[in-house]
Amino acid sequence: MNYPNKKEHSNKSYIEYGKRGMTLESDINSSNNYYLENDIAVIYKKPTPIKAVKVNYSRTKITEAYYEIPSTTDYNGIYKGKYIDFEAKETRSKTSFPINNIHKHQIIHLKRIDNHGGISFIIIRFTSINKTYLIFTKDFVDYFEQNDKKSIPLSYIEEKGYIIKDGYNPVIDYLKIIDSIL
Amino acid sequence: MNYPNKKEHSNKSYIEYGKRGMTLESDINSSNNYYLENDIAVIYKKPTPIKAVKVNYSRTKITEAYYEIPSTTDYNGIYKGKYIDFEAKETRSKTSFPINNIHKHQIIHLKRIDNHGGISFIIIRFTSINKTYLIFTKDFVDYFEQNDKKSIPLSYIEEKGYIIKDGYNPVIDYLKIIDSIL
Repeated sequence: MNYPNKKEHSNKSYIEYGKRGMTLESDINSSNNYYLENDIAVIYKKPTPIKAVKVNYSRTKITEAYYEIPSTTDYNGIYKGKYIDFEAKETRSKTSFPINNIHKHQIIHLKRIDNHGGISFIIIRFTSINKTYLIFTKDFVDYFEQNDKKSIPLSYIEEKGYIIKDGYNPVIDYLKIIDSIL
Repeated sequence: MNYPNKKEHSNKSYIEYGKRGMTLESDINSSNNYYLENDIAVIYKKPTPIKAVKVNYSRTKITEAYYEIPSTTDYNGIYKGKYIDFEAKETRSKTSFPINNIHKHQIIHLKRIDNHGGISFIIIRFTSINKTYLIFTKDFVDYFEQNDKKSIPLSYIEEKGYIIKDGYNPVIDYLKIIDSIL
């Protein structure tokens, strides 16, 4: 049996929900799920690094643990035979992306990936204006190496980066941008 | 100033320490460190997935958390432009590797990586005989798909896999085996 009206309604409310405040992380996770289920790419978010200090006798429950600073980025995987590696960040600023949102060793990591023939980038969402961009590592690294600044202006990201349009499924189709450079 | 004798001594004791019970995980981590520092490859162990349930007011200390089943494998990264993905396991058995050491969804993940053009494998250490092997996914998957068995005999791993010799630095030079198939 088909319930086209019901289905359409549920799609619509999903999109609306997406627009009124799904986080960038959940949008990326849901897109990665779509890529995985449709055999397009295999990209995962890495677990948050946590150091377990005290574990109970059954070795299942941890009673004392601490968050650790990640050594690398949040996401990596494979697409069309290429190694993919990126970090994703949201900012409430309407005009620029503060670079201290990304750890220095994460930038070193992204540069290493480029040097080894991988594809590396960051995805930045400006939550106040609801726009999401992808900018490749070499483009934002160039900016910091040429300018003594603490943030990247939105205008620079608009010029050198790529806007990721909202969609239904995948919610943010960032691999479309990778296609354009392959 | 050079202290060749001292240096030689410390190398030797390191190797001996390695032989008398460094875990496979620490051997791989130290090898990955060597690869990273010498700009050979960028391969990391993923953090153990832990679900934090209760976090204290400062959001730094976790007071209740649980281990989760990993969705993928422990290690991934990039080498010579290729996506690398593997799982590493020790067994005390002298004759075979029990397949229930690896989750079924991890095997599905390794097969996916192969299908997308990556290089995937498992590293198995037989601790009782102190031998470490690398076997590519297609070779051990073939075995399970053709035989209704719950473990892979050591003899099969010796035939289809590659032995990884102990070294000083890197302790286990598994990328040498990748070179042989590239």
